[in-house]
Amino acid sequence: MIVLKRMVLEEGLMTSITLNPIGVVRSPLKQGPVKDRRTVVSEIILDKGFAGGARGLEEFSHIYVLYWAHRARARRKTSLMVNPAGRTDVAPVGVFASRSPHRPNRILQSIVEVLERKGNVLRVRGLDALDGSPVLDIKPYDLFDVIDNPRMAAWWLQIHDQCSVKRK
Amino acid sequence: MIVLKRMVLEEGLMTSITLNPIGVVRSPLKQGPVKDRRTVVSEIILDKGFAGGARGLEEFSHIYVLYWAHRARARRKTSLMVNPAGRTDVAPVGVFASRSPHRPNRILQSIVEVLERKGNVLRVRGLDALDGSPVLDIKPYDLFDVIDNPRMAAWWLQIHDQCSVKRK
Repeated sequence: MIVLKRMVLEEGLMTSITLNPIGVVRSPLKQGPVKDRRTVVSEIILDKGFAGGARGLEEFSHIYVLYWAHRARARRKTSLMVNPAGRTDVAPVGVFASRSPHRPNRILQSIVEVLERKGNVLRVRGLDALDGSPVLDIKPYDLFDVIDNPRMAAWWLQIHDQCSVKRK
Repeated sequence: MIVLKRMVLEEGLMTSITLNPIGVVRSPLKQGPVKDRRTVVSEIILDKGFAGGARGLEEFSHIYVLYWAHRARARRKTSLMVNPAGRTDVAPVGVFASRSPHRPNRILQSIVEVLERKGNVLRVRGLDALDGSPVLDIKPYDLFDVIDNPRMAAWWLQIHDQCSVKRK
């Protein structure tokens, strides 16, 4: 539902928005930072009231999992500049140019491989969500999401081992 | 911030979550459904307080835009089964296996091409958000997001023109 408290922002009237989690992550990852998510197998336990919404997900090889960074440090004011991957040897970039969990709206997103669905329980590989993360949404990954040769920022190529990218 | 009202769901204690938009979409798309988003050029006007967070976005060719489906019909109970692309000739699927805006949490996501950034204003191509959509987050699209030969559900291949997919 939409919270009716309204705020005037510079670009006009906007409402703040309230989300209710649809489920929770059960993962061997108990604390961050996550070094390599790609081999991690986790379960997404959907609230039983939402189980019907997962029908057919398993027909896709990959899905997006949108979840809440419930363990990210709550800060009075989120910094708008971050060191990519916490690397102090890399110049800070805008938080929206990064995947830092310390974001104004702490919605995180992973593309994961669907291993199995049993009713309201999805078993997936490659989810970097920590155990207990509230799940906000799930969407199929489709062919329009495959971008040919996207351009990366120089810092991104600097901090990521290209071989590991190819192993994805 | 996190709303402290807590709800007991079947999987345990979860909090509901409040988001504040970081900006708004200015688009020629005034009403849905959107037929072909790929040639649409829109502007994302970030609230000036968040402008610093956009620094360096333009070093990536593509970004994710997460936005709120503010025009999706508010329903007391969201249906968990939807007809893909509103096609009644296609069997309904679970809403989480679809990109329908009528979702339990109406967070929509587009991968768009970055054309230009001037301070707090991003010009992008391919955003299917309707004019006035509240923007929740922006993330870079990176090489880990390129999945080789993802498997699609049969219905997805049925309703999408494969040539149009290749044109992406």
